[in-house]
Amino acid sequence: MGSTVHHIALVVRDLDEALAFYRDVLGLEMIERREVAEEGVEIAFLSAGESMIELLRPLSDEGGVARFLDKRGEGLHHICLAVDDVEVAVERLRAAGAQVLNEEPRVNDHGVRYVFVHPKSAHGVLLELYERT
Amino acid sequence: MGSTVHHIALVVRDLDEALAFYRDVLGLEMIERREVAEEGVEIAFLSAGESMIELLRPLSDEGGVARFLDKRGEGLHHICLAVDDVEVAVERLRAAGAQVLNEEPRVNDHGVRYVFVHPKSAHGVLLELYERT
Repeated sequence: MGSTVHHIALVVRDLDEALAFYRDVLGLEMIERREVAEEGVEIAFLSAGESMIELLRPLSDEGGVARFLDKRGEGLHHICLAVDDVEVAVERLRAAGAQVLNEEPRVNDHGVRYVFVHPKSAHGVLLELYERT
Repeated sequence: MGSTVHHIALVVRDLDEALAFYRDVLGLEMIERREVAEEGVEIAFLSAGESMIELLRPLSDEGGVARFLDKRGEGLHHICLAVDDVEVAVERLRAAGAQVLNEEPRVNDHGVRYVFVHPKSAHGVLLELYERT
């Protein structure tokens, strides 16, 4: 099948306040909320059809998400597309001269293989590609 | 049904170059491309599962999209959720103190009713709500 939108990630200052809007006012169902200490963030995933909205809050003043918040304020951070085969996608990207940020795909806690593409290669968008499982 | 992601909109400088990446390298299928003179933009919609990626290019140096490009460069511009009933959504938003940018829902060329929510009410995200048809 073709690519789908796996999630859209937003950086927020206060996760409870963001949930008061995205969950309680907009009515999106929360699927998961947890700290990811090694990445220095607290995350929450909300369901939106076949996609999710990811809320990201930095746990400290350090790291990429904290720098994003400091420089740009709250808002859209990245989008993640689910693809059939991440290796094939990476090959196509590299062949086209796009900058893939990971030498090899990384594997997350759920066993999903993923890579990031530099915003300069994707018209200003930090793009994540997940391999559909 | 619950809310779904209708589309994610990106502002780009050159639509052909953006299509060379999003359509030709990432492999997303183009559904539509046209100028919307009254909004001062050229748009292209690409299919991504139940959602779409919208590419937006300003037709001149004037208007909100041109100002966005001038100030922030290319990148993520807004997200649009499809909701069951836009009036109900607007009532909930107003009751919660969120700033809805349209006094009454607007209607697009496809007869879809929609509103925008100010980024300051949505944690930095320009949020569009479409009524599912």
